[in-house]
Amino acid sequence: MALAGWGDPARRHGLPSHARRWLDREVGRGTPSLPCPDVNLPPSALPSAAREALAAVVGAEHLLDDDAARHERAAGRSYLDLLRLRAGRLDEAPDAVVLPADADQVEAVLRVCSTRGVAVVPFGGGTSVVGGVRPVRGRHAAVVALDLRRLDRLLAVDPVSLTAVFEPGVRGPAAEALLAGHGLTLGHLPQSYEHASLGGYAATRSAGQASTGYGRFDELVTAVEVRTPAGPLRLGRGAASAAGPDLLGLLVGSEGAFGVVTSVTVRVRPVPAVRRYEGVFFRSWAAGCAALRELEQGGTAPDVARLSDPDETRVQLALAGTGGAKGRLGRAVLAARGYRGGCLAVLGWEGEPGVVRARRRATIATAKAHGGFAVGTSVGQRWAAGRFDGPYLRDDLLDAGVLVETLETSATWSELDRTREAVRAALQHALAGTPPTVMCHVSHLYRNGASLYFTVLARQDADDPEGQWQRAKEAASAAIVAAGATITHHHAVGTDHRAHLPAEVGELGVAVLRAVKGVLDPAGVLNPGKLLPEEDA
Amino acid sequence: MALAGWGDPARRHGLPSHARRWLDREVGRGTPSLPCPDVNLPPSALPSAAREALAAVVGAEHLLDDDAARHERAAGRSYLDLLRLRAGRLDEAPDAVVLPADADQVEAVLRVCSTRGVAVVPFGGGTSVVGGVRPVRGRHAAVVALDLRRLDRLLAVDPVSLTAVFEPGVRGPAAEALLAGHGLTLGHLPQSYEHASLGGYAATRSAGQASTGYGRFDELVTAVEVRTPAGPLRLGRGAASAAGPDLLGLLVGSEGAFGVVTSVTVRVRPVPAVRRYEGVFFRSWAAGCAALRELEQGGTAPDVARLSDPDETRVQLALAGTGGAKGRLGRAVLAARGYRGGCLAVLGWEGEPGVVRARRRATIATAKAHGGFAVGTSVGQRWAAGRFDGPYLRDDLLDAGVLVETLETSATWSELDRTREAVRAALQHALAGTPPTVMCHVSHLYRNGASLYFTVLARQDADDPEGQWQRAKEAASAAIVAAGATITHHHAVGTDHRAHLPAEVGELGVAVLRAVKGVLDPAGVLNPGKLLPEEDA
Repeated sequence: MALAGWGDPARRHGLPSHARRWLDREVGRGTPSLPCPDVNLPPSALPSAAREALAAVVGAEHLLDDDAARHERAAGRSYLDLLRLRAGRLDEAPDAVVLPADADQVEAVLRVCSTRGVAVVPFGGGTSVVGGVRPVRGRHAAVVALDLRRLDRLLAVDPVSLTAVFEPGVRGPAAEALLAGHGLTLGHLPQSYEHASLGGYAATRSAGQASTGYGRFDELVTAVEVRTPAGPLRLGRGAASAAGPDLLGLLVGSEGAFGVVTSVTVRVRPVPAVRRYEGVFFRSWAAGCAALRELEQGGTAPDVARLSDPDETRVQLALAGTGGAKGRLGRAVLAARGYRGGCLAVLGWEGEPGVVRARRRATIATAKAHGGFAVGTSVGQRWAAGRFDGPYLRDDLLDAGVLVETLETSATWSELDRTREAVRAALQHALAGTPPTVMCHVSHLYRNGASLYFTVLARQDADDPEGQWQRAKEAASAAIVAAGATITHHHAVGTDHRAHLPAEVGELGVAVLRAVKGVLDPAGVLNPGKLLPEEDA
Repeated sequence: MALAGWGDPARRHGLPSHARRWLDREVGRGTPSLPCPDVNLPPSALPSAAREALAAVVGAEHLLDDDAARHERAAGRSYLDLLRLRAGRLDEAPDAVVLPADADQVEAVLRVCSTRGVAVVPFGGGTSVVGGVRPVRGRHAAVVALDLRRLDRLLAVDPVSLTAVFEPGVRGPAAEALLAGHGLTLGHLPQSYEHASLGGYAATRSAGQASTGYGRFDELVTAVEVRTPAGPLRLGRGAASAAGPDLLGLLVGSEGAFGVVTSVTVRVRPVPAVRRYEGVFFRSWAAGCAALRELEQGGTAPDVARLSDPDETRVQLALAGTGGAKGRLGRAVLAARGYRGGCLAVLGWEGEPGVVRARRRATIATAKAHGGFAVGTSVGQRWAAGRFDGPYLRDDLLDAGVLVETLETSATWSELDRTREAVRAALQHALAGTPPTVMCHVSHLYRNGASLYFTVLARQDADDPEGQWQRAKEAASAAIVAAGATITHHHAVGTDHRAHLPAEVGELGVAVLRAVKGVLDPAGVLNPGKLLPEEDA
């Protein structure tokens, strides 16, 4: 992972000239904020006794407090994180990085930290975009990053029940490689896939690009082991249970504040023989949403269903670089058929050829009944080829002085458009000084509603880029809460949404969560400042 | 509800002569235990100050402490409950019955009871078979039944998002009648459907006969309001959320020990145009399970999928009363084709005619690939016609001095048969003195496993009928725990499974649940003796 950006810098393409021209025309470029070469970390505040006790658990070579190791775990990958990383402001770096070898070492580390009052930030891929891995000390004297990368094994495969047991540090591609040897796939592909870890997926209720078909990660998890300062929790017996409240669902999504996921049992599937993604144009957002709703409620939804609103569609077409004769012809055909200002959907099916064929036929028939115009697989292939490129593009946009961030929610079908309009209006109003381009897409379908994913571009305010986004984010969050939607569909709570948790679950719900934390983490060392709202002093 | 049995006594048919002959041959009949005409309830122990405070909340006419009202809420409908009710042993009757009009009255009742130390048993349909509504006082001086029947409204329907909001006291048939006016159905049909309430479904993670297609009740719930002594909880925003741990899933299944469900938002569907149920024979349990597994994992499972093991199949055929020429012919055909000793499945599809036709074709093709022999709709129609008759038959069997009870679990596909064998062996060993007939069926399919539902018949031990079953139940539960399966798939915990909760979720999991209860019910008045294991004195 680049220290102030995403992934392998060699994967960055730079903005092509037509994209720069589009930016200048529509968004405006600010002062480039290039990564600062000078980074000064504060000295490690880890008391030497705690350092020795931790080294005794994991071995001295697996306790790191050099600057590079601390820098690497100093932040997640939100826009605000990237601003801080680029500016070299690492006052929040962890005091040390602890790399346990197995679940027992994880638990021993938690006990040491509890006893000695050292905060612990569980660290998987470090891809959080909501501050989930910020090394917050809370009331403690020091904070360590508990890096789970050494817990990287596939522990078991049950090819009959179609489940697999993983350690938490396994990254997306490694999980797929391990399963491929058994002819199986997890199929969980969030945009962070190349770096995010399975433990992180579980801790944050991740959703992937094919979750409409494969299920959200919380639906894929059938069992977990979580180690806590109070001991281990092993949850998930049988295939479904009525043995009281769902504790498995209480630990999934606990964001490292209740414990550390040390193994996760997930549903897997045979590797699909065919993956087909294609583009369908709709004349309007309403028509596209109506088609997706009918597909989902009728049980014939595709595995991938992503519908861009008119603004996102327009920007996608502008950035696709189809300025040549073929592109002009395509746009003329769309306009002639009444799809100018329309909405582009990417729909995808995975499985055996005959099943994919039959499912595609059913999907396309419904889409056509709503005025959909199937434009073939090239749109789908382009989407699939670039499905993990967004974070690289973001680095290019930051280089160009552009504010670029995303946020997301979900709403019921009946409230979906009102919610989209409210969030758009809030963002546009909050960023009126640097008029933003606000794009939105639906990417996850449920019988009662869908997700809404917003991407915001604006000229970066050179004087106060953090404040510029924080005000916009706050306005969007307030609009989401007022609309009755959820504060986050799949990014999780972290630091950035914690103030809105009372609106989500009530003060009494927060009190319940605090009581659970009190049992599992009585010293309060686990991921301070995340998930739960700040307590009144 | 009959005071010592099920439903409307006029619905009972009595055992036909061929069934009595079969019983004599295979099970043996014990001393008939007929309902005792003399029932003596202890005097109400509700202190008059508490009585007045409760009457002030709900109105004097909605606070009942006459014998009939107390008798009616004195027990659920397990075999042990029925033995006690038949014997007239009502030492556990509630001291009064409180009938609030709405959610605010529910909360006010809970506050009064908390303040005055009166235990509260939330009471919906009273159909629990695990002791969930036993009027246990715990450490309190008195116990009241909080009967929710007046909260019987459909509060809202969202025909776009396909959800409906119900009050908790609505019974199954009333819910369907209310929805039918909107062309919608809930489709949740447990055997207790005619009497159980929607609040009870939510509180116990109910599963219905078509839950393979429609989803378990916990999957149907998108939001709840729960009133607790500490205030209201309103959970479930948007369509899916990553806003931290799943508190909705923590309240669903909380069995009245954390609060009282005062409204429940559920997914609904258009009323299906066609419901088709039919019989398929398999040559063996293994072949039938393999077919069901392939159907579920391949995404082509029917909505109803019920596979009886050889013993259950044999008993079903014996009791079907097909002793005539047609029945003999049918059995001869089955035997000639190699299905003697085989397993009968009932498979069902619901929806639009074309969709049902296509889905049926896919199902039957898979079934045939596993040697399945489709025997047409008459078996399915007979099953559907009698789908709610089991509890009536049980009353007839009790009249004949037969031990009759059910228990259930779920297991992963790879452990399914080992679990079935272990539970069968445990029951057969524990009841060796009165050799039992142990039957089993799979009735709920999941990608990673399935449910197992056992029915036990034996000659009732006239001297100690309760002990006879308690020992058998304990042996079965121990076998379930040892097999790594869940202690209950859909009957819930109640009093009967609470001792096994530590095996299910660990002592630490129990500590978490206690902490949650401590926040929501600090006085510990809510449904004492249920869900959570007994604390060490």
